[in-house]
Amino acid sequence: MSEGALRIVVLGAGRIGSLHAEIVAHETPGAELAGVSDVAPAAAATLGQRLSVPVITLEDALSRSDVDAVAVCTSTDTHVDAIIRIARAGKAIFCEKPISLDLARVDAALAVVEECGVPFMVGFNRRFDPSHAAVREAVRAGEVGEVHVVRITSRDPAPPPLEYIKVSGGIFLDMTVHDFDMARFLTGSEVVEVFAQAATRVDPAIGESGDFDTVVVNLRHADGALSVIDNSRRAVYGYDQRVEVFGSRGVAASENWRTNSAVTMGESGGTSAPLQNFFLERYRQSYQREWRSFVDAVTSGSPLPVTGADGRAPLVLGIAARMSVETRRAVAVEEVT
Amino acid sequence: MSEGALRIVVLGAGRIGSLHAEIVAHETPGAELAGVSDVAPAAAATLGQRLSVPVITLEDALSRSDVDAVAVCTSTDTHVDAIIRIARAGKAIFCEKPISLDLARVDAALAVVEECGVPFMVGFNRRFDPSHAAVREAVRAGEVGEVHVVRITSRDPAPPPLEYIKVSGGIFLDMTVHDFDMARFLTGSEVVEVFAQAATRVDPAIGESGDFDTVVVNLRHADGALSVIDNSRRAVYGYDQRVEVFGSRGVAASENWRTNSAVTMGESGGTSAPLQNFFLERYRQSYQREWRSFVDAVTSGSPLPVTGADGRAPLVLGIAARMSVETRRAVAVEEVT
Amino acid sequence: MSEGALRIVVLGAGRIGSLHAEIVAHETPGAELAGVSDVAPAAAATLGQRLSVPVITLEDALSRSDVDAVAVCTSTDTHVDAIIRIARAGKAIFCEKPISLDLARVDAALAVVEECGVPFMVGFNRRFDPSHAAVREAVRAGEVGEVHVVRITSRDPAPPPLEYIKVSGGIFLDMTVHDFDMARFLTGSEVVEVFAQAATRVDPAIGESGDFDTVVVNLRHADGALSVIDNSRRAVYGYDQRVEVFGSRGVAASENWRTNSAVTMGESGGTSAPLQNFFLERYRQSYQREWRSFVDAVTSGSPLPVTGADGRAPLVLGIAARMSVETRRAVAVEEVT
Amino acid sequence: MSEGALRIVVLGAGRIGSLHAEIVAHETPGAELAGVSDVAPAAAATLGQRLSVPVITLEDALSRSDVDAVAVCTSTDTHVDAIIRIARAGKAIFCEKPISLDLARVDAALAVVEECGVPFMVGFNRRFDPSHAAVREAVRAGEVGEVHVVRITSRDPAPPPLEYIKVSGGIFLDMTVHDFDMARFLTGSEVVEVFAQAATRVDPAIGESGDFDTVVVNLRHADGALSVIDNSRRAVYGYDQRVEVFGSRGVAASENWRTNSAVTMGESGGTSAPLQNFFLERYRQSYQREWRSFVDAVTSGSPLPVTGADGRAPLVLGIAARMSVETRRAVAVEEVT
Repeated sequence: MSEGALRIVVLGAGRIGSLHAEIVAHETPGAELAGVSDVAPAAAATLGQRLSVPVITLEDALSRSDVDAVAVCTSTDTHVDAIIRIARAGKAIFCEKPISLDLARVDAALAVVEECGVPFMVGFNRRFDPSHAAVREAVRAGEVGEVHVVRITSRDPAPPPLEYIKVSGGIFLDMTVHDFDMARFLTGSEVVEVFAQAATRVDPAIGESGDFDTVVVNLRHADGALSVIDNSRRAVYGYDQRVEVFGSRGVAASENWRTNSAVTMGESGGTSAPLQNFFLERYRQSYQREWRSFVDAVTSGSPLPVTGADGRAPLVLGIAARMSVETRRAVAVEEVT
Repeated sequence: MSEGALRIVVLGAGRIGSLHAEIVAHETPGAELAGVSDVAPAAAATLGQRLSVPVITLEDALSRSDVDAVAVCTSTDTHVDAIIRIARAGKAIFCEKPISLDLARVDAALAVVEECGVPFMVGFNRRFDPSHAAVREAVRAGEVGEVHVVRITSRDPAPPPLEYIKVSGGIFLDMTVHDFDMARFLTGSEVVEVFAQAATRVDPAIGESGDFDTVVVNLRHADGALSVIDNSRRAVYGYDQRVEVFGSRGVAASENWRTNSAVTMGESGGTSAPLQNFFLERYRQSYQREWRSFVDAVTSGSPLPVTGADGRAPLVLGIAARMSVETRRAVAVEEVT
Repeated sequence: MSEGALRIVVLGAGRIGSLHAEIVAHETPGAELAGVSDVAPAAAATLGQRLSVPVITLEDALSRSDVDAVAVCTSTDTHVDAIIRIARAGKAIFCEKPISLDLARVDAALAVVEECGVPFMVGFNRRFDPSHAAVREAVRAGEVGEVHVVRITSRDPAPPPLEYIKVSGGIFLDMTVHDFDMARFLTGSEVVEVFAQAATRVDPAIGESGDFDTVVVNLRHADGALSVIDNSRRAVYGYDQRVEVFGSRGVAASENWRTNSAVTMGESGGTSAPLQNFFLERYRQSYQREWRSFVDAVTSGSPLPVTGADGRAPLVLGIAARMSVETRRAVAVEEVT
Repeated sequence: MSEGALRIVVLGAGRIGSLHAEIVAHETPGAELAGVSDVAPAAAATLGQRLSVPVITLEDALSRSDVDAVAVCTSTDTHVDAIIRIARAGKAIFCEKPISLDLARVDAALAVVEECGVPFMVGFNRRFDPSHAAVREAVRAGEVGEVHVVRITSRDPAPPPLEYIKVSGGIFLDMTVHDFDMARFLTGSEVVEVFAQAATRVDPAIGESGDFDTVVVNLRHADGALSVIDNSRRAVYGYDQRVEVFGSRGVAASENWRTNSAVTMGESGGTSAPLQNFFLERYRQSYQREWRSFVDAVTSGSPLPVTGADGRAPLVLGIAARMSVETRRAVAVEEVT
């Protein structure tokens, strides 16, 4: 045990829980992985063994005085119950997005968090990506001036399994939710109006399940800025993640990373390497910085950089987007909240 | 007189007319500038002298057997009358965009053109830009696969004079009209639905005149593709002209050109030159290629690459966009036509 | 005749002479093409007709009071005689590089120019390329600090005909001469030592003719900076023209231009367009700026931006480079001059 | 202990030893860090504690049957003795570059390695960088054709302490040695001739110590290709690491990475982030891939990708380069070996 390190238990040993556990264990100064937990004992055991930490139940974790924080990385439908239990035990909480697909449940969880006064942060990791963060920093520093138009492109390399899509809450809550957060983060301004167009271009089965795989969403912010988001469940060329903020003094944008920097030039033109394929690669640094940020804030008692309200707002926008698709009109955010 | 060259008279000696005259005179193989004309005799005289060609009236031009074609580069409200006269004289017509701001007048002009059977081309020069054309070529060649999302960014370096804006027909007909054309050109598919958001972010005086300076427009195409256009009347960093077509097999995009290719790198990072400032610079090649295309088609009797229907469609979309802004809903194109 | 324009006669109606004539005629404010001349009457006639100017002999041109300057664009072996005649007639002189392949002849020509006091400029057009010029400007402005290393890559798309190579003076005088000039221009410092490596990699016939097609040349400047030049007679991917100046405060570099700005990204990576193919395209702007610079300096009586000494120095370096290849050692420039 | 993992002891707990230990411990599938060792007990203890592995002496390591390999990351002058001891104990050896600054000592070490038949690999990590490796792959696949010219730029962000420089063997053996390796790796061809220019541009104290801080080195390869290397001890803009291979069919090159992908564009032009600062960041992936490569080869009994001969050759070239600087002539490699 490192002297004074923040001791963290990770709930959920799936893909995202394992990632968080690994980063807490090896890549987060001031943090120590105190244990891992999962409803599937084998998954927890494998992860615990790999990282040389004990498997632990949430109950045990909450009763131990040497556990300072819990990371909630389980399936979405279990988040709210876990948050409420952890908050009541007085531990700090890191919760993977989304808090819940149900606005009332989100509000219930946030009420308990507030009542208990525990540190609480939602895992909108993209805010911590060095490139997107540098764009935000340029905006904050006034390099872009007054914001006029934000463009966000976010395309996954391949759709998730249909079973996942069916319980995901739909593309607006599962995927666009990150971009809604990004639009709020980049502009620093709330959204007041949403218009969305949706299509099934990638896989008819996604459409048949009642969801979409290709969407364009327009936002009008309180300060007058306009944001445009486009999402696709499948970009065959990799994980396409770009933001651009245009304003009265200029433009700031983040570009994609390629898997290597080699380029060739021949008689018929140039070639370059494919994009990084997915979030484990593209957003590795964002997760590291997210954890440093969480640990620093909890340790120093500072406000957390992503709040419960930040976790709630994108959910509202996702609901409004769906309503817009159904009515073919712009939806005022206040119609939803 | 070059043996067998197409002899062209340019009507209008303003900025765009002078550009066309210069390109016809010096940069278009197979063409010969036969004369220039303008309602302002001084403007015509200056241009004629600079290019060593006579000043001529439209009446004279139409009566002469050694004039093969007329380029209509006068103010928009005079286009239709000129087109009708030229068509009736049996000369080929090149008409700057837009044909007219009035749909009925457009239809009247196109009816006469069809009746007279003269070659007719609308000056949507951006189709001839080597970069945008290469994107279209990639789409046509199947490199992008089935088109899912098109993104078009088009931002001017500075707004035109307010007097111009007041007679321009509004930003959708004056500026977005190029992007409506580009969306049709890139996808090869007609637009069936339009949603538009508009704001005044650049200059309140533009808003007070009843127009907008910042707009985002979403299009749904007949083939299911979605296009997103964003326009601004002022990008302080130059003339921002980018298109991107994303589809099932990949993405093709055109990037901006800088004024020079020099870059520096120092302790605080890298720098690069500003973008090319405006269309005379950015789209010079497009005008050259547009004229070669016109001359080749007229000379060889082939179909012209931009038709009257291509001139009409963007006008319809501009009207639909304005209607969408007023109703805050998606507008079906068939509501307008 | 434009009031007050500088009236220029172009000698030589080959590829480079035609280019200069065209730029003087149409693209140089303040200049007027007064006539063209060539030893081949047909070539002169074609060019004169195309540009609507008379064919004229050098003798006539020199005797006429309405000719202000002569551009010497004939074959290299005729430059010195022409320079001497024009200087004695008191006209301004623009001379294509190189002045001569013979150092003594260069000195003879420059002596007469000096004696007659006529404006004289050598056509090292690359100095006027906006990108290379921006690099030079960054150096001059101190952005690079004290210069440490200069890298210059200059590769032609294809070798010239063998007949041309045989009378070219060899690759160091024909091709590297531009890069020697660039090294002096970028650093503002004379060269004191030369080392060169040469090979025949492109075409054995070039080697058999006694020349090389692939060379690397190292320069040590008087101020201590080191320059490295690499040349090839054939880069199949286009005309590769890059310079880079590295120093105590950073680096400034010019990059190549592609023929269009379109890029694609697919499953196997990205593609981009080929480079611009050759100097007519890549250096068009440099010729325009070169002529403006010449006309401005002559008209205003200012010093010319490229002097006779600038024309002579690269020739010395080319001779030293050849000597280095033969001796496999570094050659001090003072061994040659 | 992972079943069947290769158990590795790391000698040297300094900057590079700690890096290797961390990568073996956490980032190398199939490897297990069995212990760490250092002449400074405190350094070893700190590293061991951080990675949860025991401190161990080389003697103990060599006597234990559950140690399969030893990584020699101590100071250069101790490499040869360690190699000989480890080889005699029959363990696999990973040795940081350079093997030794003394050619005779290198030969002695390699003779023992060969006699004992143990796997031996020199840590030329840059071969494993994904970008440089992709360039090599393009060359190997014939995309570049026959190689004509190789350009390698390698500039450190800041010079090491003068004390280090004094025992480093000089810039050619300490720094250029990586680039000599790269030239051999990229071309697949041995070097037959070396010419070098050296200067003191960064810090006079480096010159006073008998070394240089700025060098340009030309190589002629056995297959006729020419390589040019330029090195600087200080690029204020970060760690500049680029290679380029030009040949009969095209060019392949690796570009630098910036610390983030954000760019801005304003009235005066564009900006981008600084380069990655140093090798821990820039070459992290290369170390990971290097270890995977070592572990895979040792585990499967395949030939190691960097041999003893690969460790020796760059030392010879460094000695030749120094000789060239002193004699101001090209030095044949056979003069040294």
